[in-house]
Amino acid sequence: MSRAAIVGGGVIGGGWAARFLLAGWDVALFDPDPEAGRKVTEVLDNARRSLPALYDTDLPGEGRLDWHDDLASAVAGADWVQESVPERLDLKHRVLGTICDHAPADAVIGSSTSGFKPSELNSQGARAIVAHPFNPVYLLPLVELVGAPDSTARAADILRAIGMYPLTLRREIAAHIADRLLEAVWRESLWLVKDGIATTEEIDEAIRMGFGLRWAQMGLFETYRIAGGEAGMKHFMAQFGPALSWPWTKLMDVPAFTDELVDLIAGQSDAQSGHMSVRELERLRDDNLVGIMRVLKTTQTGAGGVIVAHEDMLRHGGPAD
Amino acid sequence: MSRAAIVGGGVIGGGWAARFLLAGWDVALFDPDPEAGRKVTEVLDNARRSLPALYDTDLPGEGRLDWHDDLASAVAGADWVQESVPERLDLKHRVLGTICDHAPADAVIGSSTSGFKPSELNSQGARAIVAHPFNPVYLLPLVELVGAPDSTARAADILRAIGMYPLTLRREIAAHIADRLLEAVWRESLWLVKDGIATTEEIDEAIRMGFGLRWAQMGLFETYRIAGGEAGMKHFMAQFGPALSWPWTKLMDVPAFTDELVDLIAGQSDAQSGHMSVRELERLRDDNLVGIMRVLKTTQTGAGGVIVAHEDMLRHGGPAD
Repeated sequence: MSRAAIVGGGVIGGGWAARFLLAGWDVALFDPDPEAGRKVTEVLDNARRSLPALYDTDLPGEGRLDWHDDLASAVAGADWVQESVPERLDLKHRVLGTICDHAPADAVIGSSTSGFKPSELNSQGARAIVAHPFNPVYLLPLVELVGAPDSTARAADILRAIGMYPLTLRREIAAHIADRLLEAVWRESLWLVKDGIATTEEIDEAIRMGFGLRWAQMGLFETYRIAGGEAGMKHFMAQFGPALSWPWTKLMDVPAFTDELVDLIAGQSDAQSGHMSVRELERLRDDNLVGIMRVLKTTQTGAGGVIVAHEDMLRHGGPAD
Repeated sequence: MSRAAIVGGGVIGGGWAARFLLAGWDVALFDPDPEAGRKVTEVLDNARRSLPALYDTDLPGEGRLDWHDDLASAVAGADWVQESVPERLDLKHRVLGTICDHAPADAVIGSSTSGFKPSELNSQGARAIVAHPFNPVYLLPLVELVGAPDSTARAADILRAIGMYPLTLRREIAAHIADRLLEAVWRESLWLVKDGIATTEEIDEAIRMGFGLRWAQMGLFETYRIAGGEAGMKHFMAQFGPALSWPWTKLMDVPAFTDELVDLIAGQSDAQSGHMSVRELERLRDDNLVGIMRVLKTTQTGAGGVIVAHEDMLRHGGPAD
């Protein structure tokens, strides 16, 4: 039986706990927040409702969840320790230091950081790798791995065994890969709202009625390869490349993050989605994700291929651990 | 019977032709390229195979396609003229000038331009609006409309009647909305490849194994609203906002579009997708899009809601025109 220690029980930590538990691992959870128990239970409820619906095979029996009052006892005996505390480097240093003092020497120590590099996380002697997942962690397969090659290789094997998709970076970089792309879109979207070109709802429609549908199954480059037609990627780049120096690149500055901008966006978001609770939105999102990934199973594309491969492992390779 | 004139028969023009024909419109096509006939036929084949599969109701009988040797005769009598010629402003000016001289005064004159603003398109007296679609045009519902309010309102009604989703911009801006976001991602991705952080395939996986699955159904802001948890959008922004001034915004310059970068990307793209022909990739993409949109019909989310509304129109409102 394998054992994971989850440090920080927010939306991300709760998602990690669900992934390990539903893969048959025992989970030790540490979070001093008095609300953590309720939050993790809600994430687990969502996960139990949706993750098994992706599969046409039985998952292993659920592991056991234990709450710990101190970090040292939570990480003792763990095969994987996952840190998901708030995005402050001083806090991460402190928590990772304690983890490294008390976790087994051969445990994978992953950080859910979306921005920090391993060299920053480990500048005070920790031996963590970045293991950056995506919300909802219990459904989206991607985990970006960055750090020492032996640790990321071991982490990748474990992630595949619990049905996730490890993507190991060739070099460390702030914000890894996906969040660099998301940050670029976020920056551009803030300008569009601030300048009155579109509301938050209109920007969301511009995504989900168009390229969002493409990106659920193919990424940027494969989509553009098709757009290039028979002449392929070089033709596409000859067409599109010059746009890089067109005036539309002028908005690359960072908009000032004023209270006014925050209020504008929060207000538009309320108008757009305020008729549904976050719980209702989560369930709608999860139902759609399950349906989309089941479609992708039929063509073995992207996330659908990950589930099919995991089913094979579950059927032929014994329990995932 | 309504009549559309399609000026330029590439991937985009062909997609427009398919949309109108399969909605029961007659289509006049003009393109001096000797290859245009073959290209449009291939797009039509793909469209006939996939677009009806989205529907649980009959589409109107297909309209009639006529090829024209001169632009003036193609646009005569048209209710909608759609210009999809290459992205050069001098060429667009010339073509739109001829269109405006010969099309009916009340025809919608749309340009598929991904970058130019109406004020640029019309600087020599044309009366075009931007009607910017997304590839594959015969499946993705989004059309960005920019221009004179009476023309965009009329265009929006027609687009809804043929099953598409018009999104009207509040103000003109170079590259409209979606392509600003795509351009930002493209820019960032070029840096990631150039700097050896990831290959084209790895970047595609970072998209389709994670946030791409979210964006097929919800956009950026609704996804982040959920990520903010019970505290909502303001909480999310308080967490994420400061990242705007972190060092990861340093790569906002435009990478030089050298032959070396083009070769690097084209080579990686060949390694990633070269085992499938563009035709095979298109069919895989289309099968996935149909499946995904059918899932979204069951929850009436995004593009699925557009199909459901169009089915209602087809059942109760007579043929789409």
